[in-house]
Amino acid sequence: MNQLFSSHKPVKQWPFHKVLIANRGEIAVRIIRACRQLGLESVAIYSTADKDALHTKLADSAVCIGPANAANSYLNINNIITAAQVTGADAIHPGYGFLSENADFARACEQNHLIFIGPSADAISLLGNKEQARQTMVQAGMPLVKGSPTVLTDSKAALTEAKKIGFPIMIKASAGGGGKGMRVVQYPEQFESTFDLCQDEARSAFDDDHMYLEQYLTHPRHIEIQLIADQGGNTLAIGERDCTIQANHQKVMEEAPAPSLDDTTRQQMFTISEQAVAHIHYEGVGTVEFLYNGPGAFYFMEMNTRIQVEHPITEQTTGLDLIEAQFRVAAGEPLVDSRPTVANYALECRITALTPGTISGLHLPGGLGIRVDTALYQGYNVPPNYDAMIAKLIVYGPNRNVVLTKMRNAIDETVIAGISTNLELLAQLLAEPDLIAEKTDVNWLDHLLAAKEEDSYDN
Amino acid sequence: MNQLFSSHKPVKQWPFHKVLIANRGEIAVRIIRACRQLGLESVAIYSTADKDALHTKLADSAVCIGPANAANSYLNINNIITAAQVTGADAIHPGYGFLSENADFARACEQNHLIFIGPSADAISLLGNKEQARQTMVQAGMPLVKGSPTVLTDSKAALTEAKKIGFPIMIKASAGGGGKGMRVVQYPEQFESTFDLCQDEARSAFDDDHMYLEQYLTHPRHIEIQLIADQGGNTLAIGERDCTIQANHQKVMEEAPAPSLDDTTRQQMFTISEQAVAHIHYEGVGTVEFLYNGPGAFYFMEMNTRIQVEHPITEQTTGLDLIEAQFRVAAGEPLVDSRPTVANYALECRITALTPGTISGLHLPGGLGIRVDTALYQGYNVPPNYDAMIAKLIVYGPNRNVVLTKMRNAIDETVIAGISTNLELLAQLLAEPDLIAEKTDVNWLDHLLAAKEEDSYDN
Repeated sequence: MNQLFSSHKPVKQWPFHKVLIANRGEIAVRIIRACRQLGLESVAIYSTADKDALHTKLADSAVCIGPANAANSYLNINNIITAAQVTGADAIHPGYGFLSENADFARACEQNHLIFIGPSADAISLLGNKEQARQTMVQAGMPLVKGSPTVLTDSKAALTEAKKIGFPIMIKASAGGGGKGMRVVQYPEQFESTFDLCQDEARSAFDDDHMYLEQYLTHPRHIEIQLIADQGGNTLAIGERDCTIQANHQKVMEEAPAPSLDDTTRQQMFTISEQAVAHIHYEGVGTVEFLYNGPGAFYFMEMNTRIQVEHPITEQTTGLDLIEAQFRVAAGEPLVDSRPTVANYALECRITALTPGTISGLHLPGGLGIRVDTALYQGYNVPPNYDAMIAKLIVYGPNRNVVLTKMRNAIDETVIAGISTNLELLAQLLAEPDLIAEKTDVNWLDHLLAAKEEDSYDN
Repeated sequence: MNQLFSSHKPVKQWPFHKVLIANRGEIAVRIIRACRQLGLESVAIYSTADKDALHTKLADSAVCIGPANAANSYLNINNIITAAQVTGADAIHPGYGFLSENADFARACEQNHLIFIGPSADAISLLGNKEQARQTMVQAGMPLVKGSPTVLTDSKAALTEAKKIGFPIMIKASAGGGGKGMRVVQYPEQFESTFDLCQDEARSAFDDDHMYLEQYLTHPRHIEIQLIADQGGNTLAIGERDCTIQANHQKVMEEAPAPSLDDTTRQQMFTISEQAVAHIHYEGVGTVEFLYNGPGAFYFMEMNTRIQVEHPITEQTTGLDLIEAQFRVAAGEPLVDSRPTVANYALECRITALTPGTISGLHLPGGLGIRVDTALYQGYNVPPNYDAMIAKLIVYGPNRNVVLTKMRNAIDETVIAGISTNLELLAQLLAEPDLIAEKTDVNWLDHLLAAKEEDSYDN
């Protein structure tokens, strides 16, 4: 059985005992449940729109921190710090979204002697700056997608550069946009003529013939590594997640373990992620996101310094409780020195509300292999003000085929009446041959949705 | 990862494709879900009281087989066989209760060329006869609680007999009842005088001084072994369950693995159960129930020839799907030859309706470590005609303490409005120091409830 900590300090000896949850919805419910599990008191905050929300009802106490508009409530640092002080909370869990990756918020907690359940303000600040994060990660040994170091105008010089990067290669116009002056070249023999062509296009489109080159990823998948680091600098990779199924950069489904990943590459990704996180003296849970393009080919995108929406699939494949783990790290417990093993397969579908409104009927699936994380209840009014995700349906089982079938049946059993949801889309996606055969990449769903839209125009 | 079968035959090659579920409630829902998972068609049967029941709605088709009274519907063999024939079903799953251990029903299936998902009619018949079952099991090497082979009247001869059985020992009046002439003797020195005393009591109460002796179990726990046997005679023990928490011989909570069991005794129980089941050429899943009285001391009670109510705790600790396993055995798939390993801890609480009525509000718990098996939905009318169990709340996690806390919180989150339930009792039991410290035996809950009742009379 996996465990992250060898000697569990009793909660009584922890440096905090009352946790304010600076969030709403299913993640607030998830964190309140973890608090109850650990014997920690919980304080919910809520906007006026969330007076009757499940997280408001479930916590040991609840404080209104402002109006429906998130900028004045869930994003209002002063109000939240005040709520913590008024209720005697000594720690704050930020969840995901809202202020979870806001360095100012983490700093405000520090200054007010509230333990922020997450990394230091400095780490959040560093990793929140995309360019700075990339530079730091490269120093720590992280691979990036390769590109030409300077702009190019001469096709011969460009070919030399292209060979260094490797084929297939993408030629892009420096002033580019809308696909103008942009082409993929498969072989060196075709390079120079294509470069000239792109340059002509760029000149006529932008009056600028400066070009640059970038490694072309044929079928990139989104694979991310879940990490945890303790206060003593010990760092563990605790499994990967494949989040390739995205629409407009929003994850729709996530699975673990990544079906396309060979074990050698997996171990490389684990090791390099652990090293990078150790390099920046990170503390808490975090996720390194990669583009993956086949065995050995993975490229750093960014690191998220908070719990992810899709953390339950890692929990269902490892048996670990990642919110508990966040609290234990914050309480100073040291990690064990072996990575958890993965025992089965899990898939998450994000159920989103396409319209706000009152839930007039609710029937959630249950039984073997089903987990639902949600703040819904029958009679609940889904407000229009916040993230559209209203439930996470997580299915686990011995392998991907079993789980895909179970997920289809679970979605079929789900009834959410009174509002419009994406349940039908999810059901359609789960029947797509490409998804079943793992022939997807990060662009797959956008292409599919665009084609569906075109089809509907044609009708 | 555990698996019971090494080579899975595709469902298309199975000897059945359409399964009638001869049951109702949560177990019917559980079996319908398993059918959908395996690509088998499902046929529900329902009484007029269950027209709007979840199992009736969820199956691919549904047939009314009679009035609310179970004797004329769920226990009506002719109607059920006819329903199978009319719908073209080629197999019948009996669930638990109702006709699941009725040899006549299994035989009627055989005679009508319907595959009965369970053991042969002969095996059901043999194990359904308590005395015959005990004799057969003793031949197979099963230990029984020891007793005097004949009635006794002489205290000296009785002492010789008592020493053979071992102390502590129970003296009982042959004509006994109501505790008259019945005493426990801890040591041989006290035996003869106590025997004489019991004999006097028996004489004056029943005008009969024939006595007998039985091994006294100080704190018997109910531990049962889950077994599965294939058509080729391979037999596997797939974990034990502790079902000690019972009220009036009805199980209330079940846990796995059994907290009080040492591994040597566990392996003995596994081996002896496997041998016994192989001895009778059993096929399918079955459960051998024991009284357990400490290391090495376990005694056969009975064998159930069907899936148990509490099978989910074995599923959550092994990762197996036991209903699927029933279908695979019936389809002729051979078992692997290694016992599954147990990866974590699980607890089930049976939620029962104390009154019939309409569910006016329903909120079930969810999230990490929670499984709910139920046929409830908001607006459902719980009929007065059937078993009172309306939901099974199953919680799993790394150890017993974590799971006990999680169960308390899960029960706290559960809302079942419109009817009266045992949720409050379950919450009280989970706070009992004896239950937490594992200081319970099969009589514990009856004593506790009697004491509570006395308390309430006193008030």
